[in-house]
Amino acid sequence: MKEIVFKPIGVIHSEFKSPEGTPIQPSAASGAAGQVELFEEFKGGLKDLDGFSHIILLYYFHMVKGEALTGRPFMGDEDRGIFAIRGPSRPNAIGISTVRLLSVSDNILKVRDVDILEGTPLLDIKPYVPGFDNREKVRIGWLDRKIHRLKDTTDDGRFSL
Amino acid sequence: MKEIVFKPIGVIHSEFKSPEGTPIQPSAASGAAGQVELFEEFKGGLKDLDGFSHIILLYYFHMVKGEALTGRPFMGDEDRGIFAIRGPSRPNAIGISTVRLLSVSDNILKVRDVDILEGTPLLDIKPYVPGFDNREKVRIGWLDRKIHRLKDTTDDGRFSL
Repeated sequence: MKEIVFKPIGVIHSEFKSPEGTPIQPSAASGAAGQVELFEEFKGGLKDLDGFSHIILLYYFHMVKGEALTGRPFMGDEDRGIFAIRGPSRPNAIGISTVRLLSVSDNILKVRDVDILEGTPLLDIKPYVPGFDNREKVRIGWLDRKIHRLKDTTDDGRFSL
Repeated sequence: MKEIVFKPIGVIHSEFKSPEGTPIQPSAASGAAGQVELFEEFKGGLKDLDGFSHIILLYYFHMVKGEALTGRPFMGDEDRGIFAIRGPSRPNAIGISTVRLLSVSDNILKVRDVDILEGTPLLDIKPYVPGFDNREKVRIGWLDRKIHRLKDTTDDGRFSL
């Protein structure tokens, strides 16, 4: 298998029009408002989604300027392996964000805690389920001494076109 | 943007050789052993990963037999919107699983709690960070009355070739 082809199923809208200043995680996005616009042909897939308070968005980091095997994370001061950070310059530039779902109306989802750039292509929506997705007794490696910076750190454009 | 092209960066190995009987979530996989074989050219990206106890694997549901906008979930008894379930027959067949990371050696990761089929193409590895990925005060919609079935439910092949 040489390549795997996916298609955008919608577009994510947010108040963040350029990488600089965009929050680096939903948990640092302080309620930032956004909308997920699902393309019309996929809206049948939204049935039953409104019962969930949170959803996981999978999307394409369309503004990334290239891939690398290491990167300097926004909260760090040395280069780390790309699989040990969450930045966008990955071999496959897929992002994941768990956001609050406020409403589903026709093909539009109102969401909050959005750390995603305006115009980002949407790949998938999954229901967030703590019984599936949460773990206890977790070690977070290099982030353990850096995560206190989360709320005060935003994107500075280092990975972007 | 008509299509987005990704590439396999490795292969996931597990004890589950066919969909039937495969656990449907890592939290129901009871420690099932697996290995992530990262292709040699990407192993530089593993630097610093061994400090993390859990990682999020993103992969391609390569055995899925087609896409649909609704599906009958393994734990349910009626059809649900595909974005309100976690099954594989999605418009973009991307799976995510948070697994335990036991060791990193050269290009091989030993992992546990694997709910993934042998031979599954790997798309990405991200460090799991509760401060990024966990939410509180969560509603889980239709799953609220079904999730007690998780440990006793396995794949029955309904979505697979």
